[in-house]
Amino acid sequence: MGSTKGQVINCKAAVAWAPKQAFVIEEIQVAPPLASEVRIKITHTSVCHTDVSIWQIQELADVFPRIFGHEASGIVESVGEGVIDLQVGDHVIPIFQGECGDCTSCKSSKTNLCEEFTLNPGDGLMKTDRKTRFSIRGQPIFHFFGTSTFSEYTVIHRAQVVKVDPAAPLNKICLLGCGITTGVGAVLKTAKVEAGSTVAIFGLGAVGLAVAEGARIAGASKVIGVDINPRKFNKGKLWGITECLNPLEYDQPIHQVIQQKTGGGVDYSFECVGNVDVMRTAYDSCHKGWGVSVVVGVDTSSRKLLQLTPVELLEGRIWTGTVFGGIKGRSQLPELVDKYMKKELQIDEMITHTLPFSEINEALKLLIEGNSLRCVMHMHNSEH
Amino acid sequence: MGSTKGQVINCKAAVAWAPKQAFVIEEIQVAPPLASEVRIKITHTSVCHTDVSIWQIQELADVFPRIFGHEASGIVESVGEGVIDLQVGDHVIPIFQGECGDCTSCKSSKTNLCEEFTLNPGDGLMKTDRKTRFSIRGQPIFHFFGTSTFSEYTVIHRAQVVKVDPAAPLNKICLLGCGITTGVGAVLKTAKVEAGSTVAIFGLGAVGLAVAEGARIAGASKVIGVDINPRKFNKGKLWGITECLNPLEYDQPIHQVIQQKTGGGVDYSFECVGNVDVMRTAYDSCHKGWGVSVVVGVDTSSRKLLQLTPVELLEGRIWTGTVFGGIKGRSQLPELVDKYMKKELQIDEMITHTLPFSEINEALKLLIEGNSLRCVMHMHNSEH
Repeated sequence: MGSTKGQVINCKAAVAWAPKQAFVIEEIQVAPPLASEVRIKITHTSVCHTDVSIWQIQELADVFPRIFGHEASGIVESVGEGVIDLQVGDHVIPIFQGECGDCTSCKSSKTNLCEEFTLNPGDGLMKTDRKTRFSIRGQPIFHFFGTSTFSEYTVIHRAQVVKVDPAAPLNKICLLGCGITTGVGAVLKTAKVEAGSTVAIFGLGAVGLAVAEGARIAGASKVIGVDINPRKFNKGKLWGITECLNPLEYDQPIHQVIQQKTGGGVDYSFECVGNVDVMRTAYDSCHKGWGVSVVVGVDTSSRKLLQLTPVELLEGRIWTGTVFGGIKGRSQLPELVDKYMKKELQIDEMITHTLPFSEINEALKLLIEGNSLRCVMHMHNSEH
Repeated sequence: MGSTKGQVINCKAAVAWAPKQAFVIEEIQVAPPLASEVRIKITHTSVCHTDVSIWQIQELADVFPRIFGHEASGIVESVGEGVIDLQVGDHVIPIFQGECGDCTSCKSSKTNLCEEFTLNPGDGLMKTDRKTRFSIRGQPIFHFFGTSTFSEYTVIHRAQVVKVDPAAPLNKICLLGCGITTGVGAVLKTAKVEAGSTVAIFGLGAVGLAVAEGARIAGASKVIGVDINPRKFNKGKLWGITECLNPLEYDQPIHQVIQQKTGGGVDYSFECVGNVDVMRTAYDSCHKGWGVSVVVGVDTSSRKLLQLTPVELLEGRIWTGTVFGGIKGRSQLPELVDKYMKKELQIDEMITHTLPFSEINEALKLLIEGNSLRCVMHMHNSEH
């Protein structure tokens, strides 16, 4: 194939035409990248719960047709004007939480929440010109999180593209684009769990297991996993969870059970469900006076308040949340790729299914029904 | 006066006979200390807002008559069996937040929230035997926070008594029993404010000014004080507040004003009012991604939830609370006394009034009407 630089590319993408409606694999047009943008040949993508939950929000019906997807890997096809840190052929991971490098937050070592490239589920346009790079039969298709990886080719702002070691297998490290990084980072960056600490994890999906992986790397002494689906416990133990608890099997509230098992509560708890009541339980499960509770799960549907009164804050627990595990994508994600290459970080065990991209609706179904952790799809027939 | 050890002492105390009813100076009887207890001749006490707010709770009517007071200084009169670390004549400060030294929390360097001697506004009995040491005409008088310093003599468990440098003036260091320590500790121990940080303080009463003093000691670069009573601003500036804001003078919400003045928000905010809506404002006034908001004020009247939704936690601010500024009383309070003696910590400037103990109702009035920061009362005519 000759250079496609500067040309519109025709390729396949999974187009969502309306909230909750099955994706349709369509032939679409992908415009060349503008200044500071990069066009990427996506090689692998997986589906994350956040794709699903935002696809289901009826209030966002105006932002359709849309191409979802944010956990992926690929190869740079061409770069826009002024892009000097990325080149054609670079292996990359798109990041939904960008890193512009210039704002106050990017310059602070304390946060990864770039102020320029922030998450906005309702925004389907490119930042550069407030237009789309995707179209179908002349109709624009909206972007998602600035990544839109459910397409053979996509255009992404350079602030949301991380160059990685070309020796790293793209069909594995695609998972660093969201779930694994979120969980591992929540432990290592946001909570800064110390060796010997006790940890409780609520929700043993992919992110919860990645939290367990982070706890293992940090040297936690005890890792309690909590889920109401006991089918998840076998997998949990493979990921270093030392004890699994099913709240449905206890008469007393599960935070009391955890308090009793840990001398008053764990040092760190992580909520990976996205449910406001589970958040309170996770908060109560950590020790008065020093316990840190990190909200990792995203509750997109509820406007319900956190269930805590002011006086309860005086018990000295610390409540916070994390996006992308507090990892600055462009500057810190390559370290996780290195950890994987040195076998210090598990990724392969998270991949329960692989499918061709054409079967994306099956991948969605596997995730929604709780039958997969991650299903990695290969986008082009030449790859697996 | 001969030794009173082992004898019942007759002395004056300010007895609260019912919620909200003016205190009555009465002749009461104070029994000798039991094992692990200490009887203290209170030399000075002041009134704190927590005395007032708990005295006003109608639901606690059963815990009357009662002797309030928890911010004081005194001299050990006698000690109960097994007390070897305190002796007759020791200068002491009572602490409402005890330090038993043996529980998990006391053994942790991360918290001051002793699990044995915890705050319980509704508990008016001594831990040792679940009885009172105070009586009047044969009727028991309830204790308060285990300290009950509105009495010429009181009995306190040794876990709630701190021995201090006898050279330190008792009529000043009494304030380390609550307000000053709470504010200074909130900055230095709970939030661990670094030099160069920006700080916002909501509520410029005694605790708010003590937060300013902590911020000065920590080397904060900017200290914003917020209050709806502009009379407090002059005093605020004496305590190192660099800018005072009155929310009533702005059309836009005050957290937006603070965000604009500080490049997105302060590094640390402190709520010293005890109002759930102010708590949310304080939270919003600190920077996304790393801002820490510490609740110092106590809201005893409201069951209203904190006004925050789960998704907002993902903006990465950190919310926590503090009791007694995170200071372990018995082991760490003497350091603050030393700081005062070395003129590294201001106390004198907090004392706006002095009165004899007999005028305690006037001291209460001064505080409730916002006309005093602290009014120190001398208990015995020989002292001032």
